[in-house]
Amino acid sequence: MQTDTVTIDVPTRKAPPMPRHGVDTPNLLATIGVVAKQPELAKFQFRASNRWISGTHSRSSMKGFFGAGGEHEHFNDTMADADHPAVLCGADKGPTPVEWVLHALATCITAGIGNIAAARGVTLKRVESQVEGDMDLRGILGLAHDVRNGYQNVRIAFEIEGDAPPQKLREIVEQARARSAVFDIMTNGVPVAVSVTSAE
Amino acid sequence: MQTDTVTIDVPTRKAPPMPRHGVDTPNLLATIGVVAKQPELAKFQFRASNRWISGTHSRSSMKGFFGAGGEHEHFNDTMADADHPAVLCGADKGPTPVEWVLHALATCITAGIGNIAAARGVTLKRVESQVEGDMDLRGILGLAHDVRNGYQNVRIAFEIEGDAPPQKLREIVEQARARSAVFDIMTNGVPVAVSVTSAE
Repeated sequence: MQTDTVTIDVPTRKAPPMPRHGVDTPNLLATIGVVAKQPELAKFQFRASNRWISGTHSRSSMKGFFGAGGEHEHFNDTMADADHPAVLCGADKGPTPVEWVLHALATCITAGIGNIAAARGVTLKRVESQVEGDMDLRGILGLAHDVRNGYQNVRIAFEIEGDAPPQKLREIVEQARARSAVFDIMTNGVPVAVSVTSAE
Repeated sequence: MQTDTVTIDVPTRKAPPMPRHGVDTPNLLATIGVVAKQPELAKFQFRASNRWISGTHSRSSMKGFFGAGGEHEHFNDTMADADHPAVLCGADKGPTPVEWVLHALATCITAGIGNIAAARGVTLKRVESQVEGDMDLRGILGLAHDVRNGYQNVRIAFEIEGDAPPQKLREIVEQARARSAVFDIMTNGVPVAVSVTSAE
Protein backbone atom coordinates (compact mmCIF):
# COMPACT_ATOMS: atom_id res chain seq x y z
CA MET A 1 0.00 0.00 0.00
CA GLN A 2 1.30 3.44 -0.86
CA THR A 3 0.11 6.96 -0.25
CA ASP A 4 -0.51 9.24 -3.17
CA THR A 5 1.24 12.18 -1.63
CA VAL A 6 4.01 12.34 0.89
CA THR A 7 4.64 15.70 2.48
CA ILE A 8 6.71 15.57 5.62
CA ASP A 9 6.86 18.74 7.66
CA VAL A 10 10.63 18.81 8.11
CA PRO A 11 12.62 21.91 8.93
CA THR A 12 14.25 23.70 6.02
CA ARG A 13 17.28 24.64 8.13
CA LYS A 14 20.50 22.82 7.38
CA ALA A 15 21.15 21.91 11.02
CA PRO A 16 19.69 18.57 12.16
CA PRO A 17 16.51 18.82 14.25
CA MET A 18 17.13 19.02 17.98
CA PRO A 19 14.89 18.09 20.91
CA ARG A 20 13.05 21.23 21.93
CA HIS A 21 10.70 22.20 24.78
CA GLY A 22 9.77 18.60 25.55
CA VAL A 23 9.47 17.39 21.96
CA ASP A 24 11.92 14.66 20.89
CA THR A 25 12.08 16.18 17.43
CA PRO A 26 14.45 13.62 15.83
CA ASN A 27 12.28 10.76 17.08
CA LEU A 28 9.09 12.52 15.95
CA LEU A 29 10.43 13.08 12.44
CA ALA A 30 11.77 9.51 12.28
CA THR A 31 8.35 8.21 13.36
CA ILE A 32 6.65 10.18 10.60
CA GLY A 33 9.18 8.73 8.15
CA VAL A 34 8.42 5.17 9.29
CA VAL A 35 4.66 5.69 8.97
CA ALA A 36 5.19 7.16 5.50
CA LYS A 37 6.69 3.82 4.44
CA GLN A 38 4.20 1.63 6.36
CA PRO A 39 0.83 3.38 6.16
CA GLU A 40 -0.92 0.51 7.99
CA LEU A 41 0.83 1.77 11.14
CA ALA A 42 -1.30 4.93 10.86
CA LYS A 43 -4.53 3.11 11.65
CA PHE A 44 -5.62 4.02 15.19
CA GLN A 45 -8.70 3.38 17.29
CA PHE A 46 -9.30 5.50 20.37
CA ARG A 47 -11.80 4.51 23.07
CA ALA A 48 -13.62 5.62 26.18
CA SER A 49 -15.84 3.70 28.58
CA ASN A 50 -18.58 5.50 30.44
CA ARG A 51 -20.77 4.61 33.41
CA TRP A 52 -23.81 6.54 34.61
CA ILE A 53 -23.68 7.39 38.31
CA SER A 54 -26.82 9.39 39.14
CA GLY A 55 -29.01 12.06 37.59
CA THR A 56 -26.98 13.64 34.78
CA HIS A 57 -23.64 12.61 36.30
CA SER A 58 -21.44 10.01 34.61
CA ARG A 59 -17.80 9.01 34.61
CA SER A 60 -15.54 7.92 31.78
CA SER A 61 -12.37 5.90 31.74
CA MET A 62 -9.77 6.29 29.02
CA LYS A 63 -7.00 3.73 28.99
CA GLY A 64 -6.54 1.39 26.04
CA PHE A 65 -6.21 2.20 22.36
CA PHE A 66 -5.05 0.54 19.17
CA GLY A 67 -2.42 1.98 16.88
CA ALA A 68 0.94 1.49 15.19
CA GLY A 69 -0.05 -2.13 14.59
CA GLY A 70 -0.95 -3.13 18.15
CA GLU A 71 -2.79 -2.53 21.40
CA HIS A 72 -1.51 0.07 23.84
CA GLU A 73 -2.36 1.36 27.28
CA HIS A 74 -1.82 4.85 28.56
CA PHE A 75 0.62 5.14 31.45
CA ASN A 76 -2.38 5.98 33.62
CA ASP A 77 -6.07 5.11 33.43
CA THR A 78 -7.73 8.53 33.46
CA MET A 79 -11.17 8.84 35.03
CA ALA A 80 -13.18 11.96 34.26
CA ASP A 81 -16.64 13.11 35.31
CA ALA A 82 -19.25 15.24 33.63
CA ASP A 83 -22.57 16.55 34.84
CA HIS A 84 -25.10 19.28 34.23
CA PRO A 85 -24.67 22.43 36.32
CA ALA A 86 -26.95 23.37 39.20
CA VAL A 87 -28.66 26.07 37.13
CA LEU A 88 -29.83 23.25 34.83
CA CYS A 89 -30.91 21.06 37.76
CA GLY A 90 -27.74 18.94 37.70
CA ALA A 91 -25.56 18.08 40.69
CA ASP A 92 -22.53 19.81 39.09
CA LYS A 93 -20.21 16.89 39.82
CA GLY A 94 -17.99 17.93 36.93
CA PRO A 95 -17.79 20.11 33.84
CA THR A 96 -20.57 19.82 31.30
CA PRO A 97 -20.02 17.58 28.27
CA VAL A 98 -19.82 20.64 26.02
CA GLU A 99 -17.00 22.12 28.11
CA TRP A 100 -15.09 18.88 27.59
CA VAL A 101 -15.38 19.51 23.84
CA LEU A 102 -13.66 22.89 24.31
CA HIS A 103 -10.92 21.19 26.34
CA ALA A 104 -10.44 18.69 23.53
CA LEU A 105 -10.12 21.47 20.96
CA ALA A 106 -7.61 23.53 22.95
CA THR A 107 -5.42 20.55 23.83
CA CYS A 108 -5.42 19.26 20.25
CA ILE A 109 -4.28 22.48 18.63
CA THR A 110 -1.82 23.12 21.47
CA ALA A 111 -0.22 19.69 21.06
CA GLY A 112 0.20 20.43 17.37
CA ILE A 113 1.79 23.78 18.18
CA GLY A 114 4.35 21.98 20.38
CA ASN A 115 5.29 19.50 17.68
CA ILE A 116 5.25 21.89 14.74
CA ALA A 117 7.29 24.55 16.55
CA ALA A 118 9.95 21.95 17.37
CA ALA A 119 9.99 20.67 13.79
CA ARG A 120 10.46 24.25 12.56
CA GLY A 121 13.29 24.93 14.99
CA VAL A 122 11.31 27.28 17.22
CA THR A 123 11.49 27.00 21.00
CA LEU A 124 8.25 27.99 22.66
CA LYS A 125 8.09 30.01 25.86
CA ARG A 126 4.36 30.16 26.45
CA VAL A 127 1.15 29.02 24.80
CA GLU A 128 -2.22 29.80 26.36
CA SER A 129 -5.69 29.71 24.94
CA GLN A 130 -9.20 30.70 25.90
CA VAL A 131 -12.07 28.83 24.28
CA GLU A 132 -15.71 29.78 24.38
CA GLY A 133 -18.80 28.37 22.76
CA ASP A 134 -22.27 29.93 22.41
CA MET A 135 -25.31 27.76 22.89
CA ASP A 136 -29.03 28.47 22.88
CA LEU A 137 -30.46 25.85 25.22
CA ARG A 138 -33.89 26.03 23.59
CA GLY A 139 -32.45 23.39 21.27
CA ILE A 140 -31.65 20.70 23.84
CA LEU A 141 -34.65 21.62 25.97
CA GLY A 142 -36.93 20.93 23.02
CA LEU A 143 -38.36 24.46 23.10
CA ALA A 144 -37.60 25.54 19.53
CA HIS A 145 -37.16 23.19 16.60
CA ASP A 146 -35.26 25.80 14.60
CA VAL A 147 -32.51 26.05 17.23
CA ARG A 148 -29.70 23.51 17.02
CA ASN A 149 -28.69 21.40 20.02
CA GLY A 150 -24.97 22.14 19.86
CA TYR A 151 -22.78 25.21 19.81
CA GLN A 152 -23.73 27.90 17.35
CA ASN A 153 -20.21 29.34 17.36
CA VAL A 154 -16.91 28.47 18.97
CA ARG A 155 -13.95 30.83 19.32
CA ILE A 156 -10.44 29.98 20.45
CA ALA A 157 -7.92 32.73 21.15
CA PHE A 158 -4.23 31.80 21.43
CA GLU A 159 -1.40 33.71 23.02
CA ILE A 160 1.96 32.36 21.92
CA GLU A 161 5.51 33.38 22.77
CA GLY A 162 8.70 31.83 21.43
CA ASP A 163 12.11 32.56 19.94
CA ALA A 164 10.76 33.46 16.51
CA PRO A 165 9.16 36.53 14.93
CA PRO A 166 5.44 36.97 15.69
CA GLN A 167 4.48 36.11 12.11
CA LYS A 168 6.35 32.78 12.28
CA LEU A 169 4.61 31.98 15.57
CA ARG A 170 1.24 32.74 13.99
CA GLU A 171 2.07 30.40 11.11
CA ILE A 172 2.77 27.62 13.61
CA VAL A 173 -0.66 28.08 15.16
CA GLU A 174 -2.24 28.11 11.70
CA GLN A 175 -0.47 24.88 10.73
CA ALA A 176 -1.56 23.27 14.01
CA ARG A 177 -5.15 24.25 13.26
CA ALA A 178 -4.89 22.89 9.74
CA ARG A 179 -3.63 19.52 11.08
CA SER A 180 -5.84 19.29 14.17
CA ALA A 181 -7.98 16.18 14.51
CA VAL A 182 -10.44 17.83 16.91
CA PHE A 183 -10.72 20.97 14.78
CA ASP A 184 -11.61 18.72 11.83
CA ILE A 185 -14.12 16.71 13.88
CA MET A 186 -15.78 19.88 15.19
CA THR A 187 -15.91 21.83 11.96
CA ASN A 188 -16.55 19.09 9.42
CA GLY A 189 -18.55 16.54 11.40
CA VAL A 190 -18.12 12.79 11.73
CA PRO A 191 -20.55 9.89 11.26
CA VAL A 192 -21.56 8.66 14.73
CA ALA A 193 -23.40 5.33 15.06
CA VAL A 194 -25.42 4.70 18.21
CA SER A 195 -26.42 1.18 19.26
CA VAL A 196 -28.41 0.08 22.30
CA THR A 197 -28.77 -3.09 24.35
CA SER A 198 -31.63 -2.74 26.82
CA ALA A 199 -33.06 -4.86 29.61
CA GLU A 200 -35.81 -4.35 32.15
CA MET B 1 -39.51 37.42 22.50
CA GLN B 2 -41.38 34.21 21.79
CA THR B 3 -40.45 30.88 20.33
CA ASP B 4 -42.25 29.61 17.27
CA THR B 5 -42.72 26.14 18.65
CA VAL B 6 -43.03 24.97 22.21
CA THR B 7 -42.71 21.24 22.74
CA ILE B 8 -42.02 20.26 26.30
CA ASP B 9 -41.10 16.67 26.94
CA VAL B 10 -43.50 16.06 29.80
CA PRO B 11 -44.75 12.64 30.86
CA THR B 12 -48.13 11.56 29.56
CA ARG B 13 -48.93 9.74 32.81
CA LYS B 14 -51.55 11.32 35.02
CA ALA B 15 -49.42 11.17 38.17
CA PRO B 16 -47.23 14.24 38.83
CA PRO B 17 -43.55 13.77 38.02
CA MET B 18 -41.46 12.52 40.92
CA PRO B 19 -37.73 12.88 41.61
CA ARG B 20 -36.04 9.80 40.20
CA HIS B 21 -32.49 8.35 40.25
CA GLY B 22 -30.90 11.69 41.12
CA VAL B 23 -33.02 13.86 38.80
CA ASP B 24 -35.21 16.48 40.49
CA THR B 25 -37.88 15.95 37.84
CA PRO B 26 -40.40 18.56 39.08
CA ASN B 27 -37.67 21.20 39.21
CA LEU B 28 -36.36 20.16 35.77
CA LEU B 29 -39.79 20.43 34.17
CA ALA B 30 -40.45 23.73 35.94
CA THR B 31 -37.12 25.07 34.68
CA ILE B 32 -38.01 24.12 31.11
CA GLY B 33 -41.33 25.89 31.58
CA VAL B 34 -39.61 29.06 32.79
CA VAL B 35 -37.19 29.07 29.84
CA ALA B 36 -40.11 28.54 27.45
CA LYS B 37 -41.55 31.87 28.67
CA GLN B 38 -38.20 33.71 28.85
CA PRO B 39 -36.11 32.43 25.94
CA GLU B 40 -33.29 34.90 26.73
CA LEU B 41 -32.51 32.66 29.72
CA ALA B 42 -31.53 29.95 27.24
CA LYS B 43 -28.45 31.84 26.04
CA PHE B 44 -25.37 30.13 27.45
CA GLN B 45 -21.65 30.51 26.92
CA PHE B 46 -19.32 27.73 28.03
CA ARG B 47 -15.57 28.21 28.40
CA ALA B 48 -12.24 26.52 28.95
CA SER B 49 -8.78 27.97 29.56
CA ASN B 50 -5.73 26.04 28.46
CA ARG B 51 -2.02 26.33 29.20
CA TRP B 52 0.77 24.50 27.41
CA ILE B 53 3.12 22.69 29.77
CA SER B 54 5.73 20.90 27.64
CA GLY B 55 5.96 19.00 24.38
CA THR B 56 2.39 18.02 23.44
CA HIS B 57 1.15 18.22 27.05
CA SER B 58 -1.30 20.93 28.11
CA ARG B 59 -3.81 21.48 30.88
CA SER B 60 -7.27 23.03 30.80
CA SER B 61 -9.35 24.64 33.49
CA MET B 62 -13.15 24.70 33.33
CA LYS B 63 -14.85 26.88 35.90
CA GLY B 64 -16.96 29.85 34.84
CA PHE B 65 -19.81 30.01 32.37
CA PHE B 66 -22.64 32.33 31.44
CA GLY B 67 -26.28 31.30 31.32
CA ALA B 68 -29.78 31.84 32.63
CA GLY B 69 -29.10 35.56 32.52
CA GLY B 70 -25.91 35.66 34.57
CA GLU B 71 -22.41 34.43 35.33
CA HIS B 72 -21.94 31.14 37.16
CA GLU B 73 -19.10 29.09 38.56
CA HIS B 74 -18.98 25.33 38.86
CA PHE B 75 -18.77 24.03 42.42
CA ASN B 76 -15.23 22.96 41.60
CA ASP B 77 -12.62 24.25 39.16
CA THR B 78 -11.79 21.14 37.14
CA MET B 79 -8.27 20.79 35.76
CA ALA B 80 -7.70 18.24 33.02
CA ASP B 81 -4.62 17.24 31.06
CA ALA B 82 -4.14 15.93 27.55
CA ASP B 83 -1.06 14.72 25.74
CA HIS B 84 0.04 12.56 22.86
CA PRO B 85 0.84 8.93 23.71
CA ALA B 86 4.35 7.51 23.85
CA VAL B 87 3.86 5.68 20.55
CA LEU B 88 3.42 9.12 18.95
CA CYS B 89 6.43 10.54 20.77
CA GLY B 90 4.38 12.23 23.47
CA ALA B 91 4.95 12.02 27.22
CA ASP B 92 1.48 10.46 27.76
CA LYS B 93 0.63 12.82 30.63
CA GLY B 94 -3.07 12.34 29.92
CA PRO B 95 -5.58 11.06 27.39
CA THR B 96 -5.28 12.31 23.85
CA PRO B 97 -7.52 15.21 22.78
CA VAL B 98 -9.54 12.86 20.56
CA GLU B 99 -10.30 10.58 23.52
CA TRP B 100 -11.68 13.62 25.35
CA VAL B 101 -14.10 14.04 22.44
CA LEU B 102 -15.38 10.49 23.04
CA HIS B 103 -15.78 11.27 26.75
CA ALA B 104 -17.79 14.37 25.84
CA LEU B 105 -20.08 12.36 23.57
CA ALA B 106 -20.74 9.57 26.10
CA THR B 107 -21.38 11.95 28.99
CA CYS B 108 -23.70 14.16 26.93
CA ILE B 109 -25.99 11.38 25.75
CA THR B 110 -25.88 9.73 29.19
CA ALA B 111 -26.94 12.96 30.93
CA GLY B 112 -29.85 13.19 28.52
CA ILE B 113 -30.80 9.59 29.27
CA GLY B 114 -30.94 10.44 32.98
CA ASN B 115 -33.20 13.45 32.46
CA ILE B 116 -35.46 11.94 29.81
CA ALA B 117 -35.98 8.69 31.72
CA ALA B 118 -37.03 10.67 34.80
CA ALA B 119 -39.38 12.85 32.75
CA ARG B 120 -40.95 9.69 31.29
CA GLY B 121 -41.39 8.09 34.68
CA VAL B 122 -38.68 5.47 34.21
CA THR B 123 -36.20 4.69 36.96
CA LEU B 124 -32.82 3.65 35.61
CA LYS B 125 -30.72 0.89 37.11
CA ARG B 126 -27.66 0.99 34.91
CA VAL B 127 -26.35 2.87 31.91
CA GLU B 128 -22.97 2.08 30.44
CA SER B 129 -21.43 2.92 27.11
CA GLN B 130 -18.37 2.10 25.09
CA VAL B 131 -17.21 4.63 22.53
CA GLU B 132 -14.62 4.10 19.84
CA GLY B 133 -13.35 6.21 16.99
CA ASP B 134 -11.28 5.22 13.98
CA MET B 135 -8.52 7.49 12.79
CA ASP B 136 -5.93 7.23 10.04
CA LEU B 137 -3.00 9.26 11.34
CA ARG B 138 -1.69 9.90 7.84
CA GLY B 139 -4.01 12.91 7.97
CA ILE B 140 -2.54 14.70 10.96
CA LEU B 141 0.99 13.58 10.11
CA GLY B 142 0.71 15.28 6.72
CA LEU B 143 1.38 12.03 4.85
CA ALA B 144 -1.74 11.86 2.69
CA HIS B 145 -3.79 14.83 1.62
CA ASP B 146 -6.83 12.68 0.87
CA VAL B 147 -7.04 11.43 4.47
CA ARG B 148 -8.93 13.60 6.94
CA ASN B 149 -7.37 14.71 10.24
CA GLY B 150 -10.23 13.65 12.48
CA TYR B 151 -12.18 10.48 13.12
CA GLN B 152 -13.47 8.67 10.09
CA ASN B 153 -16.16 6.91 12.12
CA VAL B 154 -17.33 6.94 15.71
CA ARG B 155 -19.47 4.25 17.35
CA ILE B 156 -21.13 4.39 20.74
CA ALA B 157 -22.77 1.28 22.22
CA PHE B 158 -25.13 1.70 25.18
CA GLU B 159 -26.27 -0.87 27.70
CA ILE B 160 -29.29 0.35 29.62
CA GLU B 161 -31.38 -1.23 32.37
CA GLY B 162 -34.42 0.25 34.06
CA ASP B 163 -37.98 -0.42 35.19
CA ALA B 164 -39.47 -0.22 31.71
CA PRO B 165 -39.71 -2.55 28.73
CA PRO B 166 -36.58 -2.78 26.57
CA GLN B 167 -38.27 -0.88 23.71
CA LYS B 168 -39.11 2.05 25.99
CA LEU B 169 -35.51 2.13 27.24
CA ARG B 170 -34.27 2.17 23.66
CA GLU B 171 -36.57 5.11 22.90
CA ILE B 172 -35.07 7.03 25.82
CA VAL B 173 -31.59 6.54 24.38
CA GLU B 174 -32.83 7.62 20.96
CA GLN B 175 -34.42 10.77 22.38
CA ALA B 176 -31.21 11.56 24.29
CA ARG B 177 -29.24 11.20 21.05
CA ALA B 178 -31.70 13.43 19.22
CA ARG B 179 -31.31 16.16 21.88
CA SER B 180 -27.58 15.79 22.51
CA ALA B 181 -25.47 18.91 22.12
CA VAL B 182 -22.24 16.95 21.61
CA PHE B 183 -23.84 14.55 19.12
CA ASP B 184 -24.97 17.58 17.12
CA ILE B 185 -21.55 19.24 17.34
CA MET B 186 -19.80 16.05 16.23
CA THR B 187 -22.13 15.06 13.43
CA ASN B 188 -23.11 18.44 12.01
CA GLY B 189 -20.05 20.56 12.66
CA VAL B 190 -19.71 24.03 14.18
CA PRO B 191 -17.97 27.18 12.96
CA VAL B 192 -14.72 27.55 14.94
CA ALA B 193 -12.82 30.85 14.79
CA VAL B 194 -9.13 30.83 15.71
CA SER B 195 -7.31 34.02 16.68
CA VAL B 196 -3.67 34.48 17.65
CA THR B 197 -1.67 37.00 19.64
CA SER B 198 2.06 36.33 19.24
CA ALA B 199 5.23 37.78 20.72
CA GLU B 200 8.90 36.90 20.41
